[in-house]
Amino acid sequence: MPEPTDQHPATPPTEPHPGGPAPARGLRGQKLGDRRVRVERPQSQYFRYTPSGALQARPKAHEELGTPRRIAADLRHVLFGRPLASAEEIGERLSKKKALAIFSSDAISSSAYATEEILRVLVVAGATALVFSLEVAIAIAILLAVVSTSYRQIGYAYPNGGGAYAVAKENLGRFASLAAGGALLVDYILTVAVSTSSAVAQITSALPELLAWTVPMGVLFIVIMTLGNLRGIRESGNIFAAPTYLFVGSALLMVGLGTFRVVFEGAGAPYPDPVPGAPDPLQAVTILLVLRAFASGSVALTGVEAVANGVPAFKPPEPRNAATTLTVMAILLAVLFVGITYVAGAYGIVPSEDVTVVAEVAGTVFGEDSLGFYLFQTFTALILILAANTSFNAFPRLAALLAEDNFFPRRFAYRGDRLAYTAGIIVLATIAALLLVGFGGDTHALIPLYSVGVFMAFTLSQTGLVRHWLRDRVKGWRWRLGINAVGATMTAIVLVVVLITKAPASLLVAIIIPAMVAIMWFIHHEYETAAKELHLDRSRVFGKSEKRTRVIVPVPTISRAVVRSVQFGRALSEDVRAVHITIDAASAEQLRKDWEHMLPGVPLVIIETPYRSLVTPFLHYLDVMAPTPPDTITVVVLPEYVPRHWWDRFLHNQKAEQIGEALVGRHNTVVAAVPYGAERKSAAETRDMG
Amino acid sequence: MPEPTDQHPATPPTEPHPGGPAPARGLRGQKLGDRRVRVERPQSQYFRYTPSGALQARPKAHEELGTPRRIAADLRHVLFGRPLASAEEIGERLSKKKALAIFSSDAISSSAYATEEILRVLVVAGATALVFSLEVAIAIAILLAVVSTSYRQIGYAYPNGGGAYAVAKENLGRFASLAAGGALLVDYILTVAVSTSSAVAQITSALPELLAWTVPMGVLFIVIMTLGNLRGIRESGNIFAAPTYLFVGSALLMVGLGTFRVVFEGAGAPYPDPVPGAPDPLQAVTILLVLRAFASGSVALTGVEAVANGVPAFKPPEPRNAATTLTVMAILLAVLFVGITYVAGAYGIVPSEDVTVVAEVAGTVFGEDSLGFYLFQTFTALILILAANTSFNAFPRLAALLAEDNFFPRRFAYRGDRLAYTAGIIVLATIAALLLVGFGGDTHALIPLYSVGVFMAFTLSQTGLVRHWLRDRVKGWRWRLGINAVGATMTAIVLVVVLITKAPASLLVAIIIPAMVAIMWFIHHEYETAAKELHLDRSRVFGKSEKRTRVIVPVPTISRAVVRSVQFGRALSEDVRAVHITIDAASAEQLRKDWEHMLPGVPLVIIETPYRSLVTPFLHYLDVMAPTPPDTITVVVLPEYVPRHWWDRFLHNQKAEQIGEALVGRHNTVVAAVPYGAERKSAAETRDMG
Repeated sequence: MPEPTDQHPATPPTEPHPGGPAPARGLRGQKLGDRRVRVERPQSQYFRYTPSGALQARPKAHEELGTPRRIAADLRHVLFGRPLASAEEIGERLSKKKALAIFSSDAISSSAYATEEILRVLVVAGATALVFSLEVAIAIAILLAVVSTSYRQIGYAYPNGGGAYAVAKENLGRFASLAAGGALLVDYILTVAVSTSSAVAQITSALPELLAWTVPMGVLFIVIMTLGNLRGIRESGNIFAAPTYLFVGSALLMVGLGTFRVVFEGAGAPYPDPVPGAPDPLQAVTILLVLRAFASGSVALTGVEAVANGVPAFKPPEPRNAATTLTVMAILLAVLFVGITYVAGAYGIVPSEDVTVVAEVAGTVFGEDSLGFYLFQTFTALILILAANTSFNAFPRLAALLAEDNFFPRRFAYRGDRLAYTAGIIVLATIAALLLVGFGGDTHALIPLYSVGVFMAFTLSQTGLVRHWLRDRVKGWRWRLGINAVGATMTAIVLVVVLITKAPASLLVAIIIPAMVAIMWFIHHEYETAAKELHLDRSRVFGKSEKRTRVIVPVPTISRAVVRSVQFGRALSEDVRAVHITIDAASAEQLRKDWEHMLPGVPLVIIETPYRSLVTPFLHYLDVMAPTPPDTITVVVLPEYVPRHWWDRFLHNQKAEQIGEALVGRHNTVVAAVPYGAERKSAAETRDMG
Repeated sequence: MPEPTDQHPATPPTEPHPGGPAPARGLRGQKLGDRRVRVERPQSQYFRYTPSGALQARPKAHEELGTPRRIAADLRHVLFGRPLASAEEIGERLSKKKALAIFSSDAISSSAYATEEILRVLVVAGATALVFSLEVAIAIAILLAVVSTSYRQIGYAYPNGGGAYAVAKENLGRFASLAAGGALLVDYILTVAVSTSSAVAQITSALPELLAWTVPMGVLFIVIMTLGNLRGIRESGNIFAAPTYLFVGSALLMVGLGTFRVVFEGAGAPYPDPVPGAPDPLQAVTILLVLRAFASGSVALTGVEAVANGVPAFKPPEPRNAATTLTVMAILLAVLFVGITYVAGAYGIVPSEDVTVVAEVAGTVFGEDSLGFYLFQTFTALILILAANTSFNAFPRLAALLAEDNFFPRRFAYRGDRLAYTAGIIVLATIAALLLVGFGGDTHALIPLYSVGVFMAFTLSQTGLVRHWLRDRVKGWRWRLGINAVGATMTAIVLVVVLITKAPASLLVAIIIPAMVAIMWFIHHEYETAAKELHLDRSRVFGKSEKRTRVIVPVPTISRAVVRSVQFGRALSEDVRAVHITIDAASAEQLRKDWEHMLPGVPLVIIETPYRSLVTPFLHYLDVMAPTPPDTITVVVLPEYVPRHWWDRFLHNQKAEQIGEALVGRHNTVVAAVPYGAERKSAAETRDMG
């Protein structure tokens, strides 16, 4: 492989290609826009030869040709930055501190809404039922401990990075991997929708006058993230570190301060004790309600998988560092989640429509309208936006992985100028924005859709690990298997709980994911069919073509464009036929006379039609009157109008284009487009028409 | 010119064309959809020869090929009817009675809103000012007499039909004709918007519960008219006769009955006399207000030109019959307009927001909620819809005329399957619907825009006639000239009055019309430039082409499609070069090995690029490394993917298409598209690739 010397040309400009004419040097006045072939510049500005004899394109060879394209490219570069070479991808290795900031924003930010989800379920059974929130939160924290312990194993099993899709693919087969992939895609989309709407809710909790702008603000955030990611925001730890640590710090402060006051100052006004004579809360609170609260609160676990997916980004020893980071993250999340739930309970905070629970806690602890409150709300909104942004990395990467495996349209695997997976970013942003608008920016309404995908991915990846340890019996495989088996079982149980207690929204997702699997399967099948059709035995040798060519030129009138097309046809073949379709027999006769004089030797067929359509009679003429023999290729030569100005499209009709489109797919028929219009005209050109 | 024997084939099926193979007869099982060239049917079903040696396409030669196109065509035929041959145009000559119904709906229906426009202006100066409405109406009736007398002359001067555009074109030159054309187009658009919204207002006057649906109802009417006219409603007098005569009859009855009651029964409660001591109404009513009322009421004259435009449709003697019809129409309109104004005044009817004045008159005369009232409202709405519909004939015809003269995009001159001018109908409907929606379906708000175009067209056509009589001094030219001179002067004065008193809305139109003239002039200039560029001296003779061809095939990989493209290229030229652009040097080397084995003799150029864009390096390669010599045409052969299903577009990327688009307009470069994909594959096909 030749060394990429493109950016720092060490070798002198090479000689021009032996095949091309020696260009005059130094004349730079020549505009490229007019597309003349004469080039007055050394080729070495554009290309150089690699030792293996290939050409290497230099940056100049990527400049757009033609003024409109050049302007569009300039605009793109201003908006999104200059194009990046493939080699410019950042492969930064992360310290644990940076990694924690990058990979944990999604998980830790869940603490901003998970408590509220529990309270919102319990409040249905009356304010007294809220006393159970702490127990539910502790149960979820235990689940978190199990899941994160289970996930620690992924780093050891897949040090090269293993999302649920990769793990399931290797261990559970194609079907399970697609289910995991579908679940993750849904998860990522909902991460954007939920985190963004929660970020907006934090802002409107502090500034209620913005409530009317909930949806536009959410969409605006998504648009900003989209543009940023199209530009190619790098996973630079520095950007991410600040808000994550600011949130963690201020949230810990809030929990600590709140707890201190409750315990040592006896502050707070906890949820009312059951009134004597009123029904016992234990009776009002059914098992189903508690399970539903548990299922709702389990949204706190979303994002836990991020560290495991990012193992290769860690500094060595990768698995160990990743495991440590995961544990720290889980502990932080558990402390914040349980702590916020405890303080909320101690102060008797009841969920309301316009202010989030976490904002009420902050308001109570730091004081309404205090600087601390506003700062905390800012940090919370920021970490939620960062959490949403992680999906802008994860979704396009997974889509690209699926596309490379032929389960997704191939364009998801292409990276744009800035190395960003354009298609994935745009699809993610569009669906998330539609969800946000459709649910009116209501976090609580979106949550039931969220947990299904998350726990499905959890279950599949943990089950995959169980299979992995069974096959690959490394040292300590037994206890590793045990941990993952417990993890898989628990997450599977939670998945079922979520499906049942969060119906019907959860069932919707349970339908969407299989539908996605079916679609991906179908896409794969289509690609396989196409590949089979295009496949060629590499041992075959193709000699010179034995085919004859026959040229047919549709002729609306005798014009420069038509003569050009005919002359091109004559350069290709001896067998050139012109076809004129008309509704006016008299004018056709005049045309024939002119034709026979001007283009002797080219037969002209005149077709009269009583209708005004030209395309179908032409096609039928080809089929019926001029069928192509098997050893022949029919070349239909069409003049292609080259618009000079944007308005030309309105003035010049596209009959030739219509014929061209109708010919697409005709057996043994090739459409050749001969341009006319915006090409530069000169006296010489008229002469060389012949 | 050969006799059109297409529809009733008198000649027996002709022999197949000597060039084609003799097809096997009778095998009709062959599906056309798969586009195989082998045809098992006699060509005579599709084409026959005319005596002059041209082919004549039969209806079968217009059947769409391919299932999706066929389904689309079938749908179109169900919605809009079977295609009509150009010869099927109806050339029905109209009796005076039918002509009156056809051409007068526009003018006569104005009486449904003209009175209200006067009252709405006068009421500004208080209820007492309304007493002047009758005087204003009578003044307008006198103007009507002058204009219609003047318009009677057109039939004699232009028995072949002369709209303001044609008259101005012949007598006043291009500039005036474009002004007249622009004015008429604006007039027609507003006829649709005003008549439709007035029709809706008549309906909501009778059924106030529909008030909320004003705009949707108006749009629905426009959509129905659009579909009907795309289907090609014929100007069949019978459809039009009924509503016109029903309206005229019931309106005359209403005016008669109302007048009878006022005069003989002393009924009614006229506008209040000035209260003693209050300011004299003559003081409150300024000259400007009366002029404004006059300008508003002059909308009664809209549509008067319709008879003159339609002279050739009359039975002979055309000019005389047209003149008589015009006079009858003018008398009817004057009687209805003045009569309704009189009765409205006698009953002291004041304009209101939700009920039209004419509906209040009908309610008063026939009785609220009486059958007579509902019938009258129905007839009024019907004639207004018919009035709107007349523009659906007039606008597309004028647009086609302008397009034929190269002042409008050419597609306005094309007629669709049903002989309707599709583009004109759709543009008219779209603009009218936008106006209707923009003005909330408020007739009164639309009216100020209306009169400017109408009176500008009046003035220009009458002035044109003055010039005509000066040139063409037929018997009686002096008094004819005199009549038209009076008409031109009066309408010019009214135009100025409208412009001043209806500002700023009138000035908007006064800006739009010159803008339209400028655009039409520009379009003409563009077409002339293009024609000059394409023009060829008919005496020139073009011999056999001296050009060489060189073929370049972009190669993403070695596939059946690529080999096919290369083999096609080899059939065209000895000089075939393949170009592979890659970001992966190692895989490119493998490709080169395969290539040299499989396609010996075809040089492969490998271009490595550090970016991921393929198009620009390819273009620069052509420019820099492979410039085309002047005697050579470069043929870039691109495999063109033929989608098999609608979803294929999402799965297969269009890199080749992008290259094709980027090549459009390159000097001496032809793009040839070799299809692959949905073509039928067979074992034989693989063999004949070579």
